[in-house]
Amino acid sequence: MSSIVVVGTMAFDTIETPFGKAPKILGGSANYFALSASHYVPVRCVSVVGEDYPAEQIQLLKSRGIDVDGVLHMKEGKTFHWSGAYGYDLAEAKTLATCLNVLENFEAKVPESYRSTPFVFLGNLAPKLQSSVLAQMKEPKFVAIDTMNFWIEGQREALIEAISHCHALIINEGEIRQLTRTFNIVQAADKVREWGPQIVVIKRGEYGAALFHHGEAFVVPGLPLAEVKDPTGAGDTFAGGFMGYLASQHQFSLSTKTLRKAVVYGCVMASFTVQDFGFKELLGLKQEQREERYRRFVDLTSFHE
Amino acid sequence: MSSIVVVGTMAFDTIETPFGKAPKILGGSANYFALSASHYVPVRCVSVVGEDYPAEQIQLLKSRGIDVDGVLHMKEGKTFHWSGAYGYDLAEAKTLATCLNVLENFEAKVPESYRSTPFVFLGNLAPKLQSSVLAQMKEPKFVAIDTMNFWIEGQREALIEAISHCHALIINEGEIRQLTRTFNIVQAADKVREWGPQIVVIKRGEYGAALFHHGEAFVVPGLPLAEVKDPTGAGDTFAGGFMGYLASQHQFSLSTKTLRKAVVYGCVMASFTVQDFGFKELLGLKQEQREERYRRFVDLTSFHE
Repeated sequence: MSSIVVVGTMAFDTIETPFGKAPKILGGSANYFALSASHYVPVRCVSVVGEDYPAEQIQLLKSRGIDVDGVLHMKEGKTFHWSGAYGYDLAEAKTLATCLNVLENFEAKVPESYRSTPFVFLGNLAPKLQSSVLAQMKEPKFVAIDTMNFWIEGQREALIEAISHCHALIINEGEIRQLTRTFNIVQAADKVREWGPQIVVIKRGEYGAALFHHGEAFVVPGLPLAEVKDPTGAGDTFAGGFMGYLASQHQFSLSTKTLRKAVVYGCVMASFTVQDFGFKELLGLKQEQREERYRRFVDLTSFHE
Repeated sequence: MSSIVVVGTMAFDTIETPFGKAPKILGGSANYFALSASHYVPVRCVSVVGEDYPAEQIQLLKSRGIDVDGVLHMKEGKTFHWSGAYGYDLAEAKTLATCLNVLENFEAKVPESYRSTPFVFLGNLAPKLQSSVLAQMKEPKFVAIDTMNFWIEGQREALIEAISHCHALIINEGEIRQLTRTFNIVQAADKVREWGPQIVVIKRGEYGAALFHHGEAFVVPGLPLAEVKDPTGAGDTFAGGFMGYLASQHQFSLSTKTLRKAVVYGCVMASFTVQDFGFKELLGLKQEQREERYRRFVDLTSFHE
């Protein structure tokens, strides 16, 4: 059993979907990732919050064994706040407002106690911040990175530089197309692999996820759920399940078998997050529930005896 | 081994995709379905063509063991001609022109020799025409129906009536949402099953297909292909593989195992069609190629030992 460092946001989200509204609830990539991965291994957070961030929420992370020594508390400033809305397809959020607040001048400092952690997840942040966190780590075994359209549009070169130092890119389908300027996802994954990461994981929303590595493809569909309320955080929850499963292995392995199962566990975790607003579905989750849902994925996809 | 009656169009298609243009090539749902299903079982076509339809094309169907006694030749009229264009996502065609021509007053007559055929596929046509073909059949064992947005918008009641007499609905994802006025596909499939068909197969383009029956879900992803040129006919090719596989079983079965494999063989066949314009990929196809691709689907989706 290993552990994971995650750098990402801790935020307030204001979300509107056709199935409800959630004003100023807790969110952010570091929260979703950490709560998801913490079901598998210890997680260490690097992030920043403002004076308005609830102390009991930090306490809640601690109670799940999540190390928050790397979470910077800015006494003079407000927490990052994102507002977005989704249509019926819940496929892509329309950003209504982004208040960077304390995130604006954030310089991530990785605590000394984190630096030898073998697994690193560089959540969606400015590429230079992602690179700076990675530079502070001591020879990690496995580094994965995520990003979004905002950085692809504004800082593509710095982003490709950051990606080039990682083992895996975990990215939305629309965003890998945008990043590689290639529509076909097989070709897009090949392009990323030329830049460095030999493992490319494409998040496809309700259509699940695809994994490209060693010239092989693996695709797992999303679980058809009769009720989906809010996809916010599903991608980071997925990354948490994926990395958490990899890090939980007794022996470090990037074999096809291990990577494929990790992708499925990513989908398992994400399938809980989308059932309600915020990350409350992740909190009380029991191992039996995760395993039961894993078996639903087996059942959903099996056809060959 | 059984056989299948298909009613559908035989057409000229003029197609434009970002990967090329194909002016006035042969197409139509009956052609794609029959050429696909004929790799599994004998197929009997009910359709109509005009004086401009090439005789050698009818010959070609015959050479593949396809019965064309039910294809009406209108000496005074032109063949149905559809023109459409696709964007980079190849997900949905934009219809540029529809010249119904001989299809306009087509009254499908099922030859006496066809009427006891156990499998029936009611391809995308006016719902009344679909119902009329079904009414001419003698107690078929398995009837599947397809449709499109045009009929959902204009003749929803007649369409639901036609669907209610079928065992299976095979339909695009966007169209089942439109038909059932329900966004969630689990709920949409439930609604269709209340109308009659206990088997609902949802075609999801590059995301593969989903099967709902007996309260169970099965999803197979599409095969990631490095080159896709034209998705026209993929849905009918899918239906041909699905029905062809079902009809090819020694014993009639709608078991989970058989239905799931049928869905995969549908995706196998469709994966050939999208590789080029028209149905030429289906013509020379050998059993080894189909089986090789089936094994690619097994490999693509396997994760649980």
